[in-house]
Amino acid sequence: MTDQHDKSRPEAGANAMWGGRFAAGPDAIMERINASIDVDRRFYRQDIAASRAHAAMLVAQGIISAEDGEAIEKGLEQILGEIDAGEFAFSTALEDIHMNVEARLRELIGPAAGRLHTARSRNDQVATDFRLWVRDALDQLDEGLADLQAALLDLAEKEAATVMPGYTHLQAAQPVTFGHHLLAYVEMIGRDRGRFADSRRRMNESPLGAAALAGTSFPIDRQMTAQALGFARPMANSIDAVSDRDFALEFLAAASILAVHLSRFAEEIVLWCSEGFRFIQLSDAFTTGSSIMPQKKNPDAAELVRGKAGRVIGSLNTLLIVMKGLPLTYGKDMQEDKEPVFDAFDTLALCVAATTGMVRDMRADAEKMRAATTKGFLTATDLADWLVRVLGLPFRDAHHVTGTLVAKAEAAGLDLAELPLSAMQEVEPRITDDVYSVLTVERSVASRSVYGGTAPEQVRAAVAAARERWS
Amino acid sequence: MTDQHDKSRPEAGANAMWGGRFAAGPDAIMERINASIDVDRRFYRQDIAASRAHAAMLVAQGIISAEDGEAIEKGLEQILGEIDAGEFAFSTALEDIHMNVEARLRELIGPAAGRLHTARSRNDQVATDFRLWVRDALDQLDEGLADLQAALLDLAEKEAATVMPGYTHLQAAQPVTFGHHLLAYVEMIGRDRGRFADSRRRMNESPLGAAALAGTSFPIDRQMTAQALGFARPMANSIDAVSDRDFALEFLAAASILAVHLSRFAEEIVLWCSEGFRFIQLSDAFTTGSSIMPQKKNPDAAELVRGKAGRVIGSLNTLLIVMKGLPLTYGKDMQEDKEPVFDAFDTLALCVAATTGMVRDMRADAEKMRAATTKGFLTATDLADWLVRVLGLPFRDAHHVTGTLVAKAEAAGLDLAELPLSAMQEVEPRITDDVYSVLTVERSVASRSVYGGTAPEQVRAAVAAARERWS
Amino acid sequence: MTDQHDKSRPEAGANAMWGGRFAAGPDAIMERINASIDVDRRFYRQDIAASRAHAAMLVAQGIISAEDGEAIEKGLEQILGEIDAGEFAFSTALEDIHMNVEARLRELIGPAAGRLHTARSRNDQVATDFRLWVRDALDQLDEGLADLQAALLDLAEKEAATVMPGYTHLQAAQPVTFGHHLLAYVEMIGRDRGRFADSRRRMNESPLGAAALAGTSFPIDRQMTAQALGFARPMANSIDAVSDRDFALEFLAAASILAVHLSRFAEEIVLWCSEGFRFIQLSDAFTTGSSIMPQKKNPDAAELVRGKAGRVIGSLNTLLIVMKGLPLTYGKDMQEDKEPVFDAFDTLALCVAATTGMVRDMRADAEKMRAATTKGFLTATDLADWLVRVLGLPFRDAHHVTGTLVAKAEAAGLDLAELPLSAMQEVEPRITDDVYSVLTVERSVASRSVYGGTAPEQVRAAVAAARERWS
Amino acid sequence: MTDQHDKSRPEAGANAMWGGRFAAGPDAIMERINASIDVDRRFYRQDIAASRAHAAMLVAQGIISAEDGEAIEKGLEQILGEIDAGEFAFSTALEDIHMNVEARLRELIGPAAGRLHTARSRNDQVATDFRLWVRDALDQLDEGLADLQAALLDLAEKEAATVMPGYTHLQAAQPVTFGHHLLAYVEMIGRDRGRFADSRRRMNESPLGAAALAGTSFPIDRQMTAQALGFARPMANSIDAVSDRDFALEFLAAASILAVHLSRFAEEIVLWCSEGFRFIQLSDAFTTGSSIMPQKKNPDAAELVRGKAGRVIGSLNTLLIVMKGLPLTYGKDMQEDKEPVFDAFDTLALCVAATTGMVRDMRADAEKMRAATTKGFLTATDLADWLVRVLGLPFRDAHHVTGTLVAKAEAAGLDLAELPLSAMQEVEPRITDDVYSVLTVERSVASRSVYGGTAPEQVRAAVAAARERWS
Repeated sequence: MTDQHDKSRPEAGANAMWGGRFAAGPDAIMERINASIDVDRRFYRQDIAASRAHAAMLVAQGIISAEDGEAIEKGLEQILGEIDAGEFAFSTALEDIHMNVEARLRELIGPAAGRLHTARSRNDQVATDFRLWVRDALDQLDEGLADLQAALLDLAEKEAATVMPGYTHLQAAQPVTFGHHLLAYVEMIGRDRGRFADSRRRMNESPLGAAALAGTSFPIDRQMTAQALGFARPMANSIDAVSDRDFALEFLAAASILAVHLSRFAEEIVLWCSEGFRFIQLSDAFTTGSSIMPQKKNPDAAELVRGKAGRVIGSLNTLLIVMKGLPLTYGKDMQEDKEPVFDAFDTLALCVAATTGMVRDMRADAEKMRAATTKGFLTATDLADWLVRVLGLPFRDAHHVTGTLVAKAEAAGLDLAELPLSAMQEVEPRITDDVYSVLTVERSVASRSVYGGTAPEQVRAAVAAARERWS
Repeated sequence: MTDQHDKSRPEAGANAMWGGRFAAGPDAIMERINASIDVDRRFYRQDIAASRAHAAMLVAQGIISAEDGEAIEKGLEQILGEIDAGEFAFSTALEDIHMNVEARLRELIGPAAGRLHTARSRNDQVATDFRLWVRDALDQLDEGLADLQAALLDLAEKEAATVMPGYTHLQAAQPVTFGHHLLAYVEMIGRDRGRFADSRRRMNESPLGAAALAGTSFPIDRQMTAQALGFARPMANSIDAVSDRDFALEFLAAASILAVHLSRFAEEIVLWCSEGFRFIQLSDAFTTGSSIMPQKKNPDAAELVRGKAGRVIGSLNTLLIVMKGLPLTYGKDMQEDKEPVFDAFDTLALCVAATTGMVRDMRADAEKMRAATTKGFLTATDLADWLVRVLGLPFRDAHHVTGTLVAKAEAAGLDLAELPLSAMQEVEPRITDDVYSVLTVERSVASRSVYGGTAPEQVRAAVAAARERWS
Repeated sequence: MTDQHDKSRPEAGANAMWGGRFAAGPDAIMERINASIDVDRRFYRQDIAASRAHAAMLVAQGIISAEDGEAIEKGLEQILGEIDAGEFAFSTALEDIHMNVEARLRELIGPAAGRLHTARSRNDQVATDFRLWVRDALDQLDEGLADLQAALLDLAEKEAATVMPGYTHLQAAQPVTFGHHLLAYVEMIGRDRGRFADSRRRMNESPLGAAALAGTSFPIDRQMTAQALGFARPMANSIDAVSDRDFALEFLAAASILAVHLSRFAEEIVLWCSEGFRFIQLSDAFTTGSSIMPQKKNPDAAELVRGKAGRVIGSLNTLLIVMKGLPLTYGKDMQEDKEPVFDAFDTLALCVAATTGMVRDMRADAEKMRAATTKGFLTATDLADWLVRVLGLPFRDAHHVTGTLVAKAEAAGLDLAELPLSAMQEVEPRITDDVYSVLTVERSVASRSVYGGTAPEQVRAAVAAARERWS
Repeated sequence: MTDQHDKSRPEAGANAMWGGRFAAGPDAIMERINASIDVDRRFYRQDIAASRAHAAMLVAQGIISAEDGEAIEKGLEQILGEIDAGEFAFSTALEDIHMNVEARLRELIGPAAGRLHTARSRNDQVATDFRLWVRDALDQLDEGLADLQAALLDLAEKEAATVMPGYTHLQAAQPVTFGHHLLAYVEMIGRDRGRFADSRRRMNESPLGAAALAGTSFPIDRQMTAQALGFARPMANSIDAVSDRDFALEFLAAASILAVHLSRFAEEIVLWCSEGFRFIQLSDAFTTGSSIMPQKKNPDAAELVRGKAGRVIGSLNTLLIVMKGLPLTYGKDMQEDKEPVFDAFDTLALCVAATTGMVRDMRADAEKMRAATTKGFLTATDLADWLVRVLGLPFRDAHHVTGTLVAKAEAAGLDLAELPLSAMQEVEPRITDDVYSVLTVERSVASRSVYGGTAPEQVRAAVAAARERWS
């Protein structure tokens, strides 16, 4: 039977596909809807690893003979090699990865293959495989995120003193440094890594031995298989072991928050590349141009990172809905658990790589950034703070005086730093020319030297601390 | 470069894949994130049809020569044949279906290929292709739904007088007929078809001629291309034509509601197959068994239909999120529009086929259904209604009397129809033995003969009316 | 018992609330989770209208006496007045609006109140009330959307010839007129109205008479109550009538697409108000300022409209999840159907009003818009089209020549219209000075005079056509 | 102005409300859409606590005088009392909780109130308040979950040896004990508590001192305010401090997974209460009955817990969408962050309480449960395991022999344990009467004595271990 999910061959159009679908008898429909091998063969390493651990334990416990154990071990190794080499013939009729491997094992070693399934069931087997896969995915994403942090830290250090507007409501509010802005993402990504790490710790328990759902009457050693597979311990309840998909949900939840972070950065990249900002330049590596409009650099990669957040959130939503209201233990609905996780992982792996690439590729236009700080009286807050700090005005009064001074400057077409002292003293006679010490954007950012503030020295210290923490 | 989205070949494990991903330089990352050919080649029929219509119009308007038009037409026909036959070599470097087709056309007919793109842009082209594809999808789903309704109507007619409990809160409440219950789904599916039809009507407008976003200065005839492609009219605003993805969102919204309907029916099938009900039997065609537990018939197909509703809703959510807050006109985020739609269509096509198959496969166990109506005093409401109708009691008083009678019957271990008249008259002396005429479940359902009610005659009339309406 | 959902009184902190919650015995917990009166009292008009229609029909059919009918009618009228006047004491112990009204009716008219519930049930009653409410909501939103279209059309007409950049990827691509851009939203809103209208038509059927789920044995006239309440017809299946919440789902789906449209416009408003654009000005009516930074006009209303799209999509998602996999007929889960609908309606009513207000308040800065079209060779496409149209180059060759000319202009620091003819002829000798006729942005937009194009004349025609269509 | 969000007063119908909405001028619309006081006044305790900590720090650092500090402290204390007592007049014109408190403070203590806002901004203030609130919510939910675990453990211990069918696909598969089944939920809830604890640890950092976004030039002590408010440390980046809403997203993600767990248990309760199972009984405290159908016990509380999972997932979805693609630092969209969190907390607090209540209220019907294990050859797996263990058959062969034996038993209308030895030996001559030792459900569950298995002794040990761990 042809497989309409095979994206690698041209399809004969939706029309033909549908026709094929309904022309198909019940058997074909059932095979199509029921088989998971197209999806779960991605587990083959994990499936074989778990089978090896199980077989070794069965031998150690005297449940199967050493000879059978050895045959199984060798057979599995050969199968692993065949799949790695692309020489394994997967069969949809055999439904899933477990049956495909087992059938091949029988071909290779004969009836001894039948002993591998002693004291286990597909229910604990698939739960084990999937956990192992997600654990790998967590580790790999963590590596990618560490790399993204490193790229951000390098750029933040380089741009520790580069002044740009800090925005609220997309309106310039106060001067900050570009390095400081980038460090906000280092923090966000740090929390993402923390969530993945917590998730890994929580899910790193072995379902093996839960069998179909109730445990087994064979004298197995669950501790031994757990250790062999790098799990911290066996799961404490066999029903939970086969029913639980928290690890997949928690992965998708952490993935969605990460995707939101990446989408926020992507939005900023799109803005920064637009004519109204031009704060950064991306090379052709991450933009696409127009052959007739050379200035047009479409930030395609950033837009895709932004858009793909929707996809990751959609995957989280999918699995929450699948699991909601499902009675214990296993329902076939749960076969829908893998695709959202695979898709979210693939999507994020690509988005993290693209974002890291863009950070490394990005050239800041310090001049454009600086120029954008000169409109809009961005040091008005500094003036108000000076009035409080030096003249002792209550904050709300200082606010009022500042408003009057800004209006005066605006009417005169001047920046705050250009407003003569005499003009200032008309509004508040106690102002001295010390005030000018806070009115440039460089002085403004330098003065925010509180812990976590935007002063270049703080930014450099924060870079150093983050390198320490995250490496 | 290998393509990690190709599900048809064994993957070298998540680990290797990730390694490959990050070892990859910026170019590889960009190609992976940017190219859409793996997805949009599913459009090839639509893309070629739209190009043919466009070329014919360019000739008719004297914008290109008849010779060029003919060459283009022949070239496109050949390409269609090549793709249909699986002999076309798609290239990721050429990014999308449009460029793949155009490059091949240039190979086949030389520079004249370059004239095909006169007065159009990839923006209006992809919008046109996608609309045509969704329109086909709507037509195909409508056909599948008509088939499902036909299957439901056949079964409803057959079971028009088969009595079963009607449930609220999964507690038996009143007797209904199985046919009547099935007709509720005919109504739901009818509304689904109505939503798809409305959606088709609304989306059936041609974006062609919007060009990049502003329209074109060539004297094109948008009416002509619209007609050639079966569109009712050209879209009225060029910016809207390239920015709009309502047709995809509306498809996904209608698809999600359909998926919810199918999931409700699937839940009922799962329940009806369980030991606590056993109202129906499904053959092996739609269940999987256990080789050692013959009574175990796992309703896998129904569970998958139920679970896959989560997937369709997830796809709707994905695209709503992608489109939210996107400035006009085209952003690359919108490249994420196709996969959710394709996946929802494939999923629903399969779920509709599986549901239709289950309806045709289903055998009702009339005895089990009837037996389930005998516990729980399901005709209590009939008794109360009799007290109102015949004795003129206010409804709330009749309710109270009925409660007392039921308690009496329960205490005596009798069904309502078995409670002696004398016992009834102790509670309400005016009761006559006419009351027994409403106390069997058959009389109960027969009495609900109001329009839309569960009386077998009504059910048969409803089947006839539905056949009339939906065929 | 205090009611923690009452937002109008200060809460004693989460802590106290929780304490209260758990100190509470089972009865208090059940009352809190079960009662819906806080939510469904919003139905009171619909509930009373439906009861009046039902009572009149019962009299007409001779099921209750004319005297009882009159007493019921008078009593309901009085209750309506009491609630309208805020003098009605709602009781949580009476759970829902139906029981609250019925209990008061009994106080007012005595036992006759008990006859009102003849031949109906809370199941068909709540389905009827909710449909009537949603129908009103659809009508009201349609009115608001018509008003928004009118505001957009007025502004589009005024700005029919105001030139601005048309963007793709937030990069300027081609000149368009502001009026044309606004008309894209008129189209989107038009489709929204179409969806609401289709939804209204589909849902305008009466559930009354379905009773608990099976219909009734009383000789009721479902047609009569349907007509009295403005329904097109009675629903065809009693089980469907009490189980169906499609009308709520379809409302939320259409609402979500509308919310996405509003969010896209809101995003553009936020961008247009930012320093990088300054294309429009909003008055203080829809922005909030900073007392010390006068140039800062935070577009709060637009940001809220953008953000609230998330809320509406969340409500759609909520109800899809609630309904997924629910067996027929009524489950208490379905009590969760109303809040998402109410919240989406309230949210959208406010967002539509705010958007309409912003459109009316908005002042376009034609100078800033025009200035933004002069960077970036926005007429490059016009040049390429001229080469095709006048010199007969194939499109792809014309594209290449244009690229060379733009590069030349860029190197010389000139706009395309400023590049001397001689310089052009160095690249393509056949170019004549007719080419300058297409190189200004005004000529560019004027030339896009195809149906649906951005030419001012087309925009004015489109405004006229839209006024005709939508009024 | 009237407040249409005030659910405590009767509304004049959707119609009137809408009329009011559009009759309203821009000011009224803006006030309605912009003000958050109806929502954020729920923060008042947190807001006042943070202000007190800030004021004490300002005094300690010499930024304001001790006298001013004392006045502020006293004023805030009085305001707290007023709000606690319900005597505080909140004003929508003052927009939010911060301004409401500050305005009242000015009334009480005069201009000194103006000094409180030194070195802070509404941006870090609201971030601090919201964090403190969520931290409280996490603590309170943890308490509720501990209570739920305790209830489950008590019941699990009591029912440690009560045999029931373990289900897959809602088909009975193997015997388990009810206690063992309940312990699966103890594990799930344990992971929920772990997620909340991790989330608390991660979010327990102080934003105070970030000011508007850049930090401040005042010599504040962020460590001091952090400690005073129980935070582990100040946040490391001021931009992150005001932009971050991870703590809300992570709360909602953990809440959604918890809601899914509760929904699964609720589904089981609904099933167990239905006629097809009747495994448990719930008292009237958590069910609603029918006055005329005494056997009907609608499990309303369970259905509501199941349905409300949709609402919690909807809230998570809402906030993910709001935050997606939002540029730093603060956008007004973020004002939509609180309602989903409040609603999810209120919903879950109620659902956890209701679930705990149902566990305490639940009476298991051991007879019904036991009876359900006698149909369906639930010990077939035990038989197969015996053939492997005792006779040394490979698992797959044992499986085949078992299938034949079960078919034999079925044909004879016997249970496996009733099948004569001779009949067994016809199939496999080596079978001895030791086989009967595994064929009763009691022996079956007793034999699953592996760690995490369903054997009563294991269940009791697991209860003890869980009590140790979770108390």
